[in-house]
Amino acid sequence: MKPETLENPTLKKQPVVFTPETLLEHWQGHRRVSRRVLEVFPEDKLFTYSIGGMRTYAMLTMEMIRLAVPGLQGAVTGKWANMDDLFGEKAPTPPTTKKELLELWDKSTDMINQLWTQMRPQRFQEEEAAFGMFMGTITSSLFYLIDNEIHHRGQGYVYLRSLGIEPPAFWDRN
Amino acid sequence: MKPETLENPTLKKQPVVFTPETLLEHWQGHRRVSRRVLEVFPEDKLFTYSIGGMRTYAMLTMEMIRLAVPGLQGAVTGKWANMDDLFGEKAPTPPTTKKELLELWDKSTDMINQLWTQMRPQRFQEEEAAFGMFMGTITSSLFYLIDNEIHHRGQGYVYLRSLGIEPPAFWDRN
Repeated sequence: MKPETLENPTLKKQPVVFTPETLLEHWQGHRRVSRRVLEVFPEDKLFTYSIGGMRTYAMLTMEMIRLAVPGLQGAVTGKWANMDDLFGEKAPTPPTTKKELLELWDKSTDMINQLWTQMRPQRFQEEEAAFGMFMGTITSSLFYLIDNEIHHRGQGYVYLRSLGIEPPAFWDRN
Repeated sequence: MKPETLENPTLKKQPVVFTPETLLEHWQGHRRVSRRVLEVFPEDKLFTYSIGGMRTYAMLTMEMIRLAVPGLQGAVTGKWANMDDLFGEKAPTPPTTKKELLELWDKSTDMINQLWTQMRPQRFQEEEAAFGMFMGTITSSLFYLIDNEIHHRGQGYVYLRSLGIEPPAFWDRN
């Protein structure tokens, strides 16, 4: 996907680094890598394996899933889900199989693409408390979600290596 | 640091997500977290400890350092260092103490700030082979450096947890 600025010479003069289109592609590229990490993770270890008392990779993946679509929904609509609804006692029961986790992942991917089409361009610079708690621009909140995914996925790489499994290439976003 | 679009109403109408200024702050914010990870890492483990045959955290940090300034120099000037010069036999000898690593880190931080002032805004959308090897826009290459840092730093969090050490807060970029 080419940045739209390349096709718009007037924009080229502006100090534009990321457009909405390149940001979506940045996120979905990372999501493709994260999906592959989930795919290669052995199912029995996914829900049980931990290093240093950390969460299982299923739990880390569920954090990514629970923040992604609700976060983007908040970014698009200004209506933010409550963190307690996402992670507290009222939160939906997480899947117990890899297959279900992958299905949830793919559903989120589609919903992100759909929601993205509804984002007003001027939203990105608006300041708002994400999930009613974390103050910043919409852009900074979206990057928080992406960076948090990279961070926890990197931890998944250590889990996989320690289990003797080769993780997917970090650089391959296709 | 406020995005400059907030002070420029004409830009507000453009689909701008990241400006050069916000990108620099994004990177330096992550670098502050990475520096704190390095700081809390026990010196004796920094150069020896590994999980699953992975590199030590000193080596992961050296990768971040070796890519950061040379990567930005390439982005600014179009003259890219050779990967072999950075990582091959001819590469400079890496530090053997945490103090030296932190000094190198801080030197890189200052150089990044200096180099950033020399970046022509239109550079971000130009397509070029980073380090003569990795084709993409300058933006995508800079994000590769940042995301690679987040990825390896996340791995450092697992090393720390497995050593019984609380890592710095991921969300605190100050």
